[in-house]
Amino acid sequence: MTLSHGTLAHRLIADRLVDGRMEPSGEIGLRIDQTLTQDATGTLVMQELDALDLDRVRTEVSVQYVDHNLLQADERNAEDHAFLRSACRRFGIWYSKPGNGVSHSSHMQYFGAPGRTLAGSDSHTCAAGALGMLALGTGGLEVALAMAGRPLHVTMPEIWGIRLTGELPEWVSAKDVVLELLRRHGVKGAVNRILEYHGPGLEGLTAMDRHVIANMGAELGATTSVFPSDAAVRAFLRAEDREADFRELAAEPDAVYDRTDEIDLSTLEPLIARPTSPGNVVPVRTVAGEPIGQAVIGSSANPGLRDFAVAAAIVARRQTHPAVSFDINPTSREILADLTKTGSTFDLISAGARIHQAGCLGCIGMGQAPAAGRNSLRTFPRNFPGRSGTEDDAVWLCSPETAAASALTGEITDPRDWADRESVPYPRLRLPEHASVNRSMLEPPLPPEQAARVELERGPNISGLPDFDPLPDLLEGPVLLKCGDDVSTDEISPAGAKALPYRSNIPRLAEFTFTRLDPDYPRRAAELADDSGDDSGPGRHFVVGGENYGQGSSREHAAITPRHLGLRAVIAKSYARIHRQNLANFGVLALEFDQAADYDRIDAGDRLRLENLHAALALGAEPRLRLRNTTKDETYQVRHHLSDGRRRTVLAGGTIAALAREE
Amino acid sequence: MTLSHGTLAHRLIADRLVDGRMEPSGEIGLRIDQTLTQDATGTLVMQELDALDLDRVRTEVSVQYVDHNLLQADERNAEDHAFLRSACRRFGIWYSKPGNGVSHSSHMQYFGAPGRTLAGSDSHTCAAGALGMLALGTGGLEVALAMAGRPLHVTMPEIWGIRLTGELPEWVSAKDVVLELLRRHGVKGAVNRILEYHGPGLEGLTAMDRHVIANMGAELGATTSVFPSDAAVRAFLRAEDREADFRELAAEPDAVYDRTDEIDLSTLEPLIARPTSPGNVVPVRTVAGEPIGQAVIGSSANPGLRDFAVAAAIVARRQTHPAVSFDINPTSREILADLTKTGSTFDLISAGARIHQAGCLGCIGMGQAPAAGRNSLRTFPRNFPGRSGTEDDAVWLCSPETAAASALTGEITDPRDWADRESVPYPRLRLPEHASVNRSMLEPPLPPEQAARVELERGPNISGLPDFDPLPDLLEGPVLLKCGDDVSTDEISPAGAKALPYRSNIPRLAEFTFTRLDPDYPRRAAELADDSGDDSGPGRHFVVGGENYGQGSSREHAAITPRHLGLRAVIAKSYARIHRQNLANFGVLALEFDQAADYDRIDAGDRLRLENLHAALALGAEPRLRLRNTTKDETYQVRHHLSDGRRRTVLAGGTIAALAREE
Repeated sequence: MTLSHGTLAHRLIADRLVDGRMEPSGEIGLRIDQTLTQDATGTLVMQELDALDLDRVRTEVSVQYVDHNLLQADERNAEDHAFLRSACRRFGIWYSKPGNGVSHSSHMQYFGAPGRTLAGSDSHTCAAGALGMLALGTGGLEVALAMAGRPLHVTMPEIWGIRLTGELPEWVSAKDVVLELLRRHGVKGAVNRILEYHGPGLEGLTAMDRHVIANMGAELGATTSVFPSDAAVRAFLRAEDREADFRELAAEPDAVYDRTDEIDLSTLEPLIARPTSPGNVVPVRTVAGEPIGQAVIGSSANPGLRDFAVAAAIVARRQTHPAVSFDINPTSREILADLTKTGSTFDLISAGARIHQAGCLGCIGMGQAPAAGRNSLRTFPRNFPGRSGTEDDAVWLCSPETAAASALTGEITDPRDWADRESVPYPRLRLPEHASVNRSMLEPPLPPEQAARVELERGPNISGLPDFDPLPDLLEGPVLLKCGDDVSTDEISPAGAKALPYRSNIPRLAEFTFTRLDPDYPRRAAELADDSGDDSGPGRHFVVGGENYGQGSSREHAAITPRHLGLRAVIAKSYARIHRQNLANFGVLALEFDQAADYDRIDAGDRLRLENLHAALALGAEPRLRLRNTTKDETYQVRHHLSDGRRRTVLAGGTIAALAREE
Repeated sequence: MTLSHGTLAHRLIADRLVDGRMEPSGEIGLRIDQTLTQDATGTLVMQELDALDLDRVRTEVSVQYVDHNLLQADERNAEDHAFLRSACRRFGIWYSKPGNGVSHSSHMQYFGAPGRTLAGSDSHTCAAGALGMLALGTGGLEVALAMAGRPLHVTMPEIWGIRLTGELPEWVSAKDVVLELLRRHGVKGAVNRILEYHGPGLEGLTAMDRHVIANMGAELGATTSVFPSDAAVRAFLRAEDREADFRELAAEPDAVYDRTDEIDLSTLEPLIARPTSPGNVVPVRTVAGEPIGQAVIGSSANPGLRDFAVAAAIVARRQTHPAVSFDINPTSREILADLTKTGSTFDLISAGARIHQAGCLGCIGMGQAPAAGRNSLRTFPRNFPGRSGTEDDAVWLCSPETAAASALTGEITDPRDWADRESVPYPRLRLPEHASVNRSMLEPPLPPEQAARVELERGPNISGLPDFDPLPDLLEGPVLLKCGDDVSTDEISPAGAKALPYRSNIPRLAEFTFTRLDPDYPRRAAELADDSGDDSGPGRHFVVGGENYGQGSSREHAAITPRHLGLRAVIAKSYARIHRQNLANFGVLALEFDQAADYDRIDAGDRLRLENLHAALALGAEPRLRLRNTTKDETYQVRHHLSDGRRRTVLAGGTIAALAREE
């Protein structure tokens, strides 16, 4: 039983609760006011809306952003954009053109509103918690269902109160706050928890600073993060010409949290996450002096005008090191406009920056890949191996202050030490009180009668959704892959310039499945399918995982593409929240070991067998199953965490099949 | 015999003539003062310098620009950059960092000087003729030899005087001038000719306007273009803080040209080249109304501050069409700095532009690929099929005025009609008299003693140059490919985001050879090599071409990669100048039909045979050979155009082998 009460998270949930009770680990259903999709996941969402036969979205606001696939190495990206625009016109969705900006900060600027619920097919959707929203990153199909007016189902999380006190020292900024949490708690530290920030330390943090912190809650595994809606939020909305959307929101004064932590901001120092996990956090000073080849400012993990302006102030009238590529990825055209108006763009260009178009770019491996083994400092949220596009990459995550100072020196540099050496005072920025608000790259939804006449523009790379067969009663097959802890969805279905253009083409994208871990996986799965010789579906097989299986990005492709290749069940020690949902949505059984030690007893290649699945997943049945290892002649106890609804989904072969059956 | 005399071209040539006589179609050798290389060709040039065992370049100025491979989809681009920087430090070359800008306009800004000779491993090197330079695009090995202090050999061209009179009307600009020449004379119109501009019409053209015209002389097939060095050139050099480099240069008043043409600028109207050749020029008004999906401003064919500023003025306080991606590719960081200082950047951003990093980008197929079949308007120099990265592309070439007006309307638009409709006066730009000169992204050569200690940083993708064997006395093999007229080097060895990263890796790049024309060519060549069973070299074969074989880009990869696959002789109706040199440099025999009609007698798959090649290519031998078609039992007369020096080169298997033999 939960002890917590009176938290802001409880209030936000209670306001939209349509199903279940607010008891930890129970399933709750939430009414969703707003959705966001980005292009790398959105092309599937739009196909799902089509498969669901939706006429028009039922949300208050749904927005499709184009921020991932911007490189356009061939016609596929531009065709995806045309498809997405046509789907927006068809279904009553806002369309944000390529170049308008990264979804998370743009959504906050254009639509974010305290107290509203937001579901997004991107794991960093949680960033909108900065405005006192309940914002949940989830699989694309969950978002499609929310757009269709269905509630979003999640496990009721614990509420973790993070009390902030004190004031950040000079040269230390919001990124260092969330890196401190990652240093303390690691990438699994907040799984099944909402991080709720409170305390006097909030006063010194703007809404965009809070966005930085809320964004990388995803890296802690959090369900989401929540900040109160206070004077900082009001100032933000005023700057965006939307003060009318302001509503004050806070926890009750006597709120009690399930778990608590406290950060005295005044004690923080510049921090950095070493390759290749956001959890490898150390003080910058302990790694100072390592040579670097690249420094990048941008992404949804440092999206604000301030983040670029502080970097500009640091490099102004100076020159970046000749061996360093200093890349600036403006988060949005609005922010680039303001940077340009205030002179920061000029300062950055003069210091040798490469100014790129507004978008995710290197953060999602679309360009900007560093040379192998050369250190790249980035203000991004993630540094999973290979995510940069370079197999043997060395990507570090840090604040704009650290990245900019290091770009000047050519080595990892604690900005305080650089400032001391160069006698540079900490830049006191004067940012405009009003943003260059400009909504003209946002195309509003068409009126219903016009929308109904729009045809979807499907290019040849838009594959349509595969049909998946129901779960058989007997599942037998080999373990085609055994992986370790913290396997990310980047490792299951990679992003990057090579794979991303196929996000709307499942058969082609499937060829990339698990190749980061094992280049042979797709071939072995195909051979298995060829050999199976029965009609039980192509190449049925198992994957065994460790802790936190499927962490990272929300991409449902990490469920769909292995399913397309014949994966029918995963057995892991534990799962990341969104990926577990995605597996169920596409008919893959996600099982957990009762005894974590049984993980060690299974080897890749062992044949596994699950019997009487239909009875085992029937409503009311115990969530325990017996897993036979016929190679080793052993039996293990495993369990599922499927709600009644999701049992039906998995049995049917996935959500779309289940919904079709309902009708 | 030439009739021409007293031309500026003659004077420039005479000043640097070290070999041969200035008689049309004779070979002349020129002392080269300056060289430029870009990264897509430069990685080979640097390897050639290494193969030539050069200690330090002997030119006045050699500069390596990084402007092509900027996308960095994986580690290869960044590794190329590191290799190039190390080679610059080793050999005494200036290094222009990624983001500093496109080679041609940057070179003009930083180093261009009237009266100097410039050799560049890029076909648009000729653009520097705008400053009264003799600037020649050529193969990389020619540039490497020039860097080593050897003269550059070219065929003495005819001098074609183009007299300009009158003044450009409103809404018509320099791009329309060169499009008019292409409309009149087509893509082969100036082969083996220097275009020399003179006349009172020059007064209204700035140095950068002239760059636009000189640049696309390459599209007419010209050896180069030459403009006088006058007040406009002085103003340009003053703006770049280099007035000291100014020197007045002009043709003599009684100069006589081999051929003449005249353009009354006041009669011109907005022109556009239809897909898929720069020669398909029509008035914009005749194609107005076609819907577009993209408009791009930039590239070396419209590189000046004015070109962007006029586009910015047109779209200022307006919005580009929702279906149009409006892409801005600043030519250099200097130009982006000036655009930013003057407010143009802000206007462009506000109108919905995607502002990209400084570089070639879509012009060389590095990103910005349009959707198949959707019209893309670009201010670029080339629209060869597929060069954009999209197989079935529809790329049009036009002025910034036409591109910007069309971006607003969403359809191809004559800017005069748009201005009439909207009552918009032609923008009278006030550009700064001084540029934001900033050389800090240009790394100067190291002093010799330091340079000698530098090690080349060869990443795994830097393959080294292949060893090519000498020409056999008997050459026999099949015609592996027969192609039509105007085959471009883009079709022989494609650029674009997929192939470009392998420009320093010959075996890997060879897999792209001719695939635009015939996806099976590399496979058939490999099979031939497997089947040959002798030690006469892998898969010896022939290619048959039409007119103007090897037009377009100067890339020597279009000679090296087919040679690597076994191509030993091409028989064509005629050749583009640079490609013919490149073939000789890598030991491929370039032959021409005596009777063009014999082209029709040969089919793909026929076996051809050339006997007694060693005697036929000996010094003093007649340049005629007998080509046997053993399949058809026919014989054709063919000829080569090899000077004595190049006969030795081809016999030795290429220039590097020939030089090694000399020592």
